[in-house]
Amino acid sequence: MNEQIAPSAVVLFSGGQDSTTCLYWAKRRFDALYALSFDYGQRHRIELDAARTIAQMAGVAQHRIVKVSALEQLGDSALLTDAPIQETGGRGNLPNTFVPGRNLLFLVLAAAWAYQLECHHLVGGMCQTDYSGYPDCRRATLDALEQALQLGMEWEIHIHTPLMFLTKAESARLAMEVGAMEALAYSHTCYEGRFPPCGTCPACRLRAKGFAEAGIPDPLLLRWHAATQRG
Amino acid sequence: MNEQIAPSAVVLFSGGQDSTTCLYWAKRRFDALYALSFDYGQRHRIELDAARTIAQMAGVAQHRIVKVSALEQLGDSALLTDAPIQETGGRGNLPNTFVPGRNLLFLVLAAAWAYQLECHHLVGGMCQTDYSGYPDCRRATLDALEQALQLGMEWEIHIHTPLMFLTKAESARLAMEVGAMEALAYSHTCYEGRFPPCGTCPACRLRAKGFAEAGIPDPLLLRWHAATQRG
Repeated sequence: MNEQIAPSAVVLFSGGQDSTTCLYWAKRRFDALYALSFDYGQRHRIELDAARTIAQMAGVAQHRIVKVSALEQLGDSALLTDAPIQETGGRGNLPNTFVPGRNLLFLVLAAAWAYQLECHHLVGGMCQTDYSGYPDCRRATLDALEQALQLGMEWEIHIHTPLMFLTKAESARLAMEVGAMEALAYSHTCYEGRFPPCGTCPACRLRAKGFAEAGIPDPLLLRWHAATQRG
Repeated sequence: MNEQIAPSAVVLFSGGQDSTTCLYWAKRRFDALYALSFDYGQRHRIELDAARTIAQMAGVAQHRIVKVSALEQLGDSALLTDAPIQETGGRGNLPNTFVPGRNLLFLVLAAAWAYQLECHHLVGGMCQTDYSGYPDCRRATLDALEQALQLGMEWEIHIHTPLMFLTKAESARLAMEVGAMEALAYSHTCYEGRFPPCGTCPACRLRAKGFAEAGIPDPLLLRWHAATQRG
C-alpha cells in the first residue's frame, strides 16, 4: 500500500496510545476513516471517553461504539473482572489480561462493518514486539484471519498493522511523524483507569519506557502538568 | 478422529435440522457436549425455543444461549430485518439472508468458550453442498479460521463439520443413523417462523426435498399430523 491513498479504512480504535497512533497513520493514507470501538465491559469507562474525544479530534467520517457482551458472557479474564492484573499466570503463562479470541472477534466485527461500508482495509494497533505476548496480536495470526475473512465474506480485506514490528520507542516516534501528539494527550493507557495515570501498572510502565527511550515527553503527562499549573 | 471418544466438544447449535443432526453425531463421539446457541436478533424466537427443547432431550452437559447484539448494530441482512427473503440479490449475487461474518463470529465465540472449558473440539452444521452458497460455510474458510484460532489463542482447536459434503438427503440419512429423529421432530427450519412450517420458503423447500429424496418422513411433520389427529 505504501503512501498511496485508498478510499477508506475501518480503524480498530480503543482510545489507547497504539490505536491513536494508528488512527493518525491511517489519516495520511485513506480518504475517509471509520473508527470502531468496542464496549466490552471494560473496567474503566475513561477508555471509551478518550476514544470519543480523539475520534472527533481526528475528524473521522464515523465513529461507532459497538456493545459486545458475548465476551462477558463467556470469558473470565482479569480485564473484565476485579482480579488483580498480572503479567503472567494465565494459561501457557500468558498475562491474565488475555481474553481468548478478543482480537479475533473485534477483527471479524470490523470486517463485517467494512463489508457494509464497501471498504477493503482494516487498521489495528496490534504489535508483536509488545511486552504482552498476546498470541492474537501476532502477524501470523492476522495473516490466517485475513484469509478466513476474505474466503468467508468473498470480499477483499487487508489488515494493516503499522506498529506490528516496532518497539514502543519507535511507536512514539511514529506518532510524532504522523501528527498524533496532540491526540495522544487524550489517549488512555492506564490499567487502573486513572488520570493522571497511576504510573505503576504494566501498561503505564510500558508507555513511559517507550516515550523515555524515544526522548519524547508523553503529551498525556504534559496535559496533566499544564492542568495542575492552571489549577 | 473417526469414532474415537474425545472428552468434550462445543456444538454450535441453532435448533435447526442441521445442527440437531450434528448434536447427535457429536453425542456418539464425545463424552460431554456443550451446546452453544446465539440470540442475534433472529426474526423468530421459535428457533431458540427449539434449541432449548432439543438440548435438554440430548442431555448436554451445558446449554448456553449467548446474546450477540454486535451484528444487529453493524449488519443489515434480511434475517435481522423485515425485508423479504430472496435466494439471490445480495452482493455477488449471494442470498440476501447472508450476514457477512456471522459464522466466523459464532466460531470465534465458540472457540473462546472452548478455551474456557479446556476443550479442543468444535462441531458445526456448515455445509457447502447447501443451496445457500454462503461463503462462510465452506471448508476452505473454516480451515483458514481454524488456523487463525489456533494461532490466536495458542490452543488446539478442531472444527468438525460432519455435514460439509453431504446432500440434504444424505444428511437426513445420517440423522437417522445417529439417532436424531426424535429430536428432529422439534427442530426448527422455516424462515417464516411457523409451526407447522410454511412449506414454501427456501428453507422449508430444501428440508422437504432432503427428506423426500432420502425416502424418510420428516419427523416434524409427523409430530404435526399426530397433534392435529389428537386435536
